[in-house]
Amino acid sequence: MDIRLASLGFGNVGRALVKMLDEKAAELERLHHLTFIFSGALTRTSGGWISTRGVTPGELAAGEWPGGSLPVGVERFEGDSRAFAAGCPAEIVLELTPLNPRSGQPAIDHIRAAFAAGRHVVTANKGPIAYAYPELRALAGEHGVSLRFESAVLDGTPIFNMVESSLPVTTISGFRGLLNSTSNYIRSRMAIGDALESATQDAQRLGIAEADPTLDLEGWDAAVKATILANVLMSADLRPADIERSGVSSEAMLAKEQALPPGHTLKQVVVCCRSEEDGAVRASVHLQALPESDLLAHLSGMETGLTLHTDTMGNLTIIEGKGGPGQTAFGLLSDLVWIAREFF
Amino acid sequence: MDIRLASLGFGNVGRALVKMLDEKAAELERLHHLTFIFSGALTRTSGGWISTRGVTPGELAAGEWPGGSLPVGVERFEGDSRAFAAGCPAEIVLELTPLNPRSGQPAIDHIRAAFAAGRHVVTANKGPIAYAYPELRALAGEHGVSLRFESAVLDGTPIFNMVESSLPVTTISGFRGLLNSTSNYIRSRMAIGDALESATQDAQRLGIAEADPTLDLEGWDAAVKATILANVLMSADLRPADIERSGVSSEAMLAKEQALPPGHTLKQVVVCCRSEEDGAVRASVHLQALPESDLLAHLSGMETGLTLHTDTMGNLTIIEGKGGPGQTAFGLLSDLVWIAREFF
Repeated sequence: MDIRLASLGFGNVGRALVKMLDEKAAELERLHHLTFIFSGALTRTSGGWISTRGVTPGELAAGEWPGGSLPVGVERFEGDSRAFAAGCPAEIVLELTPLNPRSGQPAIDHIRAAFAAGRHVVTANKGPIAYAYPELRALAGEHGVSLRFESAVLDGTPIFNMVESSLPVTTISGFRGLLNSTSNYIRSRMAIGDALESATQDAQRLGIAEADPTLDLEGWDAAVKATILANVLMSADLRPADIERSGVSSEAMLAKEQALPPGHTLKQVVVCCRSEEDGAVRASVHLQALPESDLLAHLSGMETGLTLHTDTMGNLTIIEGKGGPGQTAFGLLSDLVWIAREFF
Repeated sequence: MDIRLASLGFGNVGRALVKMLDEKAAELERLHHLTFIFSGALTRTSGGWISTRGVTPGELAAGEWPGGSLPVGVERFEGDSRAFAAGCPAEIVLELTPLNPRSGQPAIDHIRAAFAAGRHVVTANKGPIAYAYPELRALAGEHGVSLRFESAVLDGTPIFNMVESSLPVTTISGFRGLLNSTSNYIRSRMAIGDALESATQDAQRLGIAEADPTLDLEGWDAAVKATILANVLMSADLRPADIERSGVSSEAMLAKEQALPPGHTLKQVVVCCRSEEDGAVRASVHLQALPESDLLAHLSGMETGLTLHTDTMGNLTIIEGKGGPGQTAFGLLSDLVWIAREFF
């Protein structure tokens, strides 16, 4: 079974996905009878192309695009991104454009256009899920297609797919976690005496920090992820601005660092719960001094983790050892295989 | 869709499953269009029964069996356990008899008999999976039925189902974990100065220890679980006796406790890896002094956890907050829903 992919955005994660699809091509064929080919890609800076024959992950990985010449035998695509989402001949559209943390656009429109053209969507972009999940889920249902987004939180760590496949009839009443690897990395460095500035620069060099690191440090990235988890896993209807963020500025961090009680560790902690009084779901991002008895205090370096509070299994915690473009790409691959199993 | 269950064994876990199926009946119907009914059950001490009409989880939960009178309207079953597995009119056989840590029998025979009669099997019994997984998997394939066993390791914590559903084309090169909640509970109590004997007695009172607690403390339970993980997740062909166990006696534990380096915590740790030299999979259970930097050092009380070493996601860790019959029952329920989705 050949499945054609069209990619909106083609940066670090897109290149990591191409590499992984190439390396895993034989296993995908043997275990799942699947062959993925690219029928097009579009980037803001290098333009786009479409191929009716399709370009294999191996050909794409070996070539120089984006940055160099187009893959052999493709046509240049001249339209805008919505036209690409609707027109590129593919079964699945990959939405990999950069996060717009204020509105989720234009990625939401890309997904709407793909659905209207009968395509499934797999995305690593947090924006559309944080800003438009209920609408997009309903729209996918109307068009008989799938929207999957494992990589939106903790890269490819199984959360959404795990809950759907392996926690049936389970009510999630809340969650708690360290969701932002950059802030955890920087907090770990500061705990051993390094300065905020040098730790931040290193996080950027490692490719884990957002271009604007205040999105990480001041809790915006975590707030977007908390919104997604609350809306998807707890049927809430929050927006990132609804997430309480306090004490997350650099000044507050340095002041809390000074006043840290012995044996405590400062971490950027996301907490979400459903109120027993009014049933409302509330979430927050705080810099908290965690005692030694708290498991989250012991996540260090680039580790991130999430504890789900469930009625069936009590507390379940999942920890990602180290995230990066390769792990995000794996979440996309996992979603691609999921859709293929379900629809093809 | 009505699905009939026949249960071999009906102890704490069986009763917890009945309670959960009753409490979740409306959700199972609404979300999955599933109704589970019991067409029979057999225990060693209270005998067994069969019902062609079927007994609902609610009726079973409200009744007194086992220990009191039979459910209303059932026939007493007089044959042996193999005949029950083959003859009780059910789509799915639940194998919930006690673990035989030396051979996995007679549970292996129960599963063979169920397969031969065309029934799917869901089990919480570690024995058959540790001693006969490759054979039973092949046999299930021949008969076109399913064998599921999420609860064999870390209760219903998604491990096998999570790997199958959410870690496609992933190679697991090894794992490491605290798999025995009793020994972790006892180690946590001893770390705060309690005696081995009183901690062991409390573990038995809490219902988490095996009847013979040396199975927990001397690493047999962990060795059986390591065998299952290695054989299922890494295609190894180990038996529990192949798992190296050293330094796990009570005497060794007390001696290591005395000699514990500052800042270290003693834990019963399972380690498994595939040798880069000969490709062989080797696993061990050791009492190890873990430094503070080791996440496993911070699992306390009844927490258990497993880190998988993967080629796609690096290290992924999953931690169960607290196990017990309810969590084991949830693993069974999760497997039942999985089979229903796949086959009905």
